[in-house]
Amino acid sequence: MSKGRVEAFSDGVFAVAITLLIFNIQVDKAAPGELFNALMAAWPKYAAYVASFLTIGVMLMNHHGLFTRIAHLNRPLLFLNLLLLMAIVFLPFPTAQLGANILVPQDAPTAASFYAASAVLIAVFFSAFWAYLFTHPDLLSPDVDREAVLRSWPRFSIGLIAYLICVPLGQVSPIGVIIVCAAMAIYYAFERLPDISRRPADALRRPE
Amino acid sequence: MSKGRVEAFSDGVFAVAITLLIFNIQVDKAAPGELFNALMAAWPKYAAYVASFLTIGVMLMNHHGLFTRIAHLNRPLLFLNLLLLMAIVFLPFPTAQLGANILVPQDAPTAASFYAASAVLIAVFFSAFWAYLFTHPDLLSPDVDREAVLRSWPRFSIGLIAYLICVPLGQVSPIGVIIVCAAMAIYYAFERLPDISRRPADALRRPE
Amino acid sequence: MSKGRVEAFSDGVFAVAITLLIFNIQVDKAAPGELFNALMAAWPKYAAYVASFLTIGVMLMNHHGLFTRIAHLNRPLLFLNLLLLMAIVFLPFPTAQLGANILVPQDAPTAASFYAASAVLIAVFFSAFWAYLFTHPDLLSPDVDREAVLRSWPRFSIGLIAYLICVPLGQVSPIGVIIVCAAMAIYYAFERLPDISRRPADALRRPE
Amino acid sequence: MSKGRVEAFSDGVFAVAITLLIFNIQVDKAAPGELFNALMAAWPKYAAYVASFLTIGVMLMNHHGLFTRIAHLNRPLLFLNLLLLMAIVFLPFPTAQLGANILVPQDAPTAASFYAASAVLIAVFFSAFWAYLFTHPDLLSPDVDREAVLRSWPRFSIGLIAYLICVPLGQVSPIGVIIVCAAMAIYYAFERLPDISRRPADALRRPE
Repeated sequence: MSKGRVEAFSDGVFAVAITLLIFNIQVDKAAPGELFNALMAAWPKYAAYVASFLTIGVMLMNHHGLFTRIAHLNRPLLFLNLLLLMAIVFLPFPTAQLGANILVPQDAPTAASFYAASAVLIAVFFSAFWAYLFTHPDLLSPDVDREAVLRSWPRFSIGLIAYLICVPLGQVSPIGVIIVCAAMAIYYAFERLPDISRRPADALRRPE
Repeated sequence: MSKGRVEAFSDGVFAVAITLLIFNIQVDKAAPGELFNALMAAWPKYAAYVASFLTIGVMLMNHHGLFTRIAHLNRPLLFLNLLLLMAIVFLPFPTAQLGANILVPQDAPTAASFYAASAVLIAVFFSAFWAYLFTHPDLLSPDVDREAVLRSWPRFSIGLIAYLICVPLGQVSPIGVIIVCAAMAIYYAFERLPDISRRPADALRRPE
Repeated sequence: MSKGRVEAFSDGVFAVAITLLIFNIQVDKAAPGELFNALMAAWPKYAAYVASFLTIGVMLMNHHGLFTRIAHLNRPLLFLNLLLLMAIVFLPFPTAQLGANILVPQDAPTAASFYAASAVLIAVFFSAFWAYLFTHPDLLSPDVDREAVLRSWPRFSIGLIAYLICVPLGQVSPIGVIIVCAAMAIYYAFERLPDISRRPADALRRPE
Repeated sequence: MSKGRVEAFSDGVFAVAITLLIFNIQVDKAAPGELFNALMAAWPKYAAYVASFLTIGVMLMNHHGLFTRIAHLNRPLLFLNLLLLMAIVFLPFPTAQLGANILVPQDAPTAASFYAASAVLIAVFFSAFWAYLFTHPDLLSPDVDREAVLRSWPRFSIGLIAYLICVPLGQVSPIGVIIVCAAMAIYYAFERLPDISRRPADALRRPE
């Protein structure tokens, strides 16, 4: 199974999963003339949509960053990729629960912690993929600077820790979970991974 | 993250978003024998489907046109692309509201203005992407004629202005919003962008 | 807009549209223990699924066949392609109506004729695309044998005629429409288009 | 129709079908405060999701493995590929039935056997595709070791037999079907196909 087809399939899964998030935005109109209020009352669904869209989008960027370092894939790596995609495709479900329950006082903590636990699952599979890859140097592209990558590990694992903290945080402040997750996505989009990715990736790109 | 994979992912998102529009067409049959009338009564949903399909389709053409001018992508541009896709994926939701409410006198203005506001959001992110790109000439393909592009700006921004006008127009004539949006899509498909895109793109294509 | 990206986007739309057909298969279980009967009673939905899946699949093959003859695309052709995709993405809706109503005596003729009319719409846009392409020889690949293509036209238009006949046929024999549409798909998959496509396409493929 | 576009379309269908599985996970909350229990009670849906996700994922790996051996495609092979995709896209429907009914004693056996029968259908079309391919050596890549492939056939057909056994097994132990299907996916991911695929595929890859 060529790397190109795995990338194409993964991109397709990301594209479908990110687009399906829109199905979580639905409004129930009580009566004619109530549309404006119904659209306004749906704001938690918009917030959950934005948080999950950015989360999946940034995961895609990191997935791409990881794959530029891969020379070829073996069966265990393919299987880990499948598990990672399985966790990402699951995200629309906790997103729907979050959007539907964030304003229900009895259920908002459950929905928020469930959402955070799903993000933890993604981060765990991401870490497993990353760990397997870097313990199998023969799968890595030869010009990857492994030292630099390993040094970047603590910063990369911030995501896993932040999502783990969100699980109990959900019990206290459900809305805080949405804010932390959206913030993590923006943080990863700009701050950390460029540092890890750009330099070796640039080195890689030049000979092309 | 290579330009090719960003294009492939973006195309995938466009393809899924445009296809999901069909879910907004649903009919409720009151009783056996009522199917013909139910199909006829669903005409606003067909109209909203056509308007949104053409809108997304033409946005895709413009997205492609923009990307042919890009030499490489950096993190802020990737993030702006993600925001643009987030706004485009949102469109099926206001499309559904428009189709469901255009014949409900109390809610049609709200649905039409909401639809127009969503189109404004897309146009704003499109403009931000465009503006960022043209203020960072190092990201542009070297043979792009920046002068010609800047001269074309006023014509390009017609879309943003037209959608902005549609927000208050929805309060007066909801059906007018569908007509203007479909007209904008046809106008952009044929009239304006070829002028901007074809000449530099041709120049680009020749050396290939 | 490069031909490669138009193909990739079109393939994506075909892939999503064909996959969404599965949503039309749903069963309503009256009570526990009724699942077996409910699954059996859903046979018209399976039949509609098969007919539409094969129809879209064969349209994809023909779309590919057409695109191998195209050297480059202009705006009107892009717009015709968009209209064609719009009609194809619409097909899951009449498929759902057909599956849901074929056993309702009062509504089956309406659903069948509506389904056939949607197939006519696709065939019309296909013909328009084809006609535009062959009246603009500068868009065609230089080694296409235009004479052979024009001679094949009457056989190609069999589809349009068959679907047109299905519109009144639906009023008499709704199930007949499903059978004709599935038969048309199988007929096109094997019999006609290879004759048109293979010879010039082979000629095209050799220099690669 | 070029092999590249058939692969891209097939990958797209796999990506959409695997992602749509998430729609089968839905919870009905009886009352506010019931979310936690509802999420817990949905475990059979999570199990069905995992089993089907892995099944489709491993089928994709095998599809890729098969296509690396193909030199070019003819119409019957295209049609067999379409039938195979039709069976794979169908899988979310029995998955939904399995998830919804596994805890309903009267319906669980029906749902489990129906799920197994759908897996049999996929395996049958897979075998037909494989058999057609290997009886038409002109379609095969010239460096494929046909002897090794034929020797691997008995191991490959384990899948078909296991799924066939699951049809009656469902009547006795519905949960056993989920376990066997998930186990088959993991077995195929790691054990058997690498043996068939890697050696000739490696040979193929070298000249690239």
